Amino acid sequence: MGNGGAARTKRSTDASTRGTPSRARGRDQEVLDAAAEVFARKGFAAATVQDVADALGILKGSLYYYIDTKEDLLFRVVVEVHEAADALHATVAAATGLSPLEQLLHYVRLQVAWNAQNNVKISVYYDDMEKLSAERLAEVRQRRRAHETFVIEMIASAQEAGEITAAVPPTLLANQVFAVVVWPYRWFRSRNKTTVQELADACADFLRGGLVGAPR
Amino acid sequence: MGNGGAARTKRSTDASTRGTPSRARGRDQEVLDAAAEVFARKGFAAATVQDVADALGILKGSLYYYIDTKEDLLFRVVVEVHEAADALHATVAAATGLSPLEQLLHYVRLQVAWNAQNNVKISVYYDDMEKLSAERLAEVRQRRRAHETFVIEMIASAQEAGEITAAVPPTLLANQVFAVVVWPYRWFRSRNKTTVQELADACADFLRGGLVGAPR
Repeated sequence: MGNGGAARTKRSTDASTRGTPSRARGRDQEVLDAAAEVFARKGFAAATVQDVADALGILKGSLYYYIDTKEDLLFRVVVEVHEAADALHATVAAATGLSPLEQLLHYVRLQVAWNAQNNVKISVYYDDMEKLSAERLAEVRQRRRAHETFVIEMIASAQEAGEITAAVPPTLLANQVFAVVVWPYRWFRSRNKTTVQELADACADFLRGGLVGAPR
Repeated sequence: MGNGGAARTKRSTDASTRGTPSRARGRDQEVLDAAAEVFARKGFAAATVQDVADALGILKGSLYYYIDTKEDLLFRVVVEVHEAADALHATVAAATGLSPLEQLLHYVRLQVAWNAQNNVKISVYYDDMEKLSAERLAEVRQRRRAHETFVIEMIASAQEAGEITAAVPPTLLANQVFAVVVWPYRWFRSRNKTTVQELADACADFLRGGLVGAPR
């Protein structure tokens, strides 16, 4: 199942956007960005489709051209976060000449930077994902498990290669990786003195120390 | 200002509980625990005072004997989390013979263990705190800043003592500490194979590595 199925189908069957896919995609993206901003600001439960329409400066009726329900918007924000993570996985998997630990830290730098640049959507993902319908939540959780498996396998490989501590189970170490990768959404703002690249490097260095372990 | 001021005052002026402070405190605690459980399950926005009354098996009117508004319950949960953290700070500050890094790791073990044992309240704290009124939110943020300062000062002392990396600002390292200390509420459940003490030790070891840095 794809990115925001219902809305995607709705648009593609409408004659008015046929032949202008890139322009329609651009408008789709604007809708998604505005929805994420409204949800992050008000919380999904309190936000209304009217709020999103107001943020876009369009009529609520026009917004229903893109979606059927408010939940469609949340689902599409969550799916966009996962599609970005999938793209990072592919980049990391394609990188050659890296040890398992180097590969993991490469992934960490990319994901921390993406999250910092997409802080609004990451906030919605972590704060409101549970508001999805049971069916969609199950689908998203399946994608999340695949994501976790990707990280756990890099950790297990780094343990087998003797690069990091083998005293802690890979799943527990993976949760430490997620802690360091995810947490900046609670405090990092691009107006801070720290740049996105400095943040990404600091997180990778910190994780390296935690995973390898300091000498006693 | 104290722990849930309005409710506290309300109860203490009622003749029926005078002379039975410990029993009244026990009932207060039951109300608080039930509210936290309901907020964690439904989210504060969707939860109602009726839900909390149902969880307690009492009439809604009886619950209003303890509180004036639903937000009073949220505030009291948030304040309880801060009071517990203050008590841990006092314990750590009173510990003698520890270097700054040892003191920090002592605090981390205690806070991770408390959080794991109070996972429901920690969830409410991090997921719903922003729903407080502006005035109460300002008060809580001031307490949070004091908490952050406590951690930042231990980190700065550990840097001055040459125990941990001085290449990263203390505030950024403090955010890594909070990442590792807070994140388990998103995944750790006491039914897991990992015990609370194993979790606390794993977090302290991981943080030590991240703060000290692994040899290159």
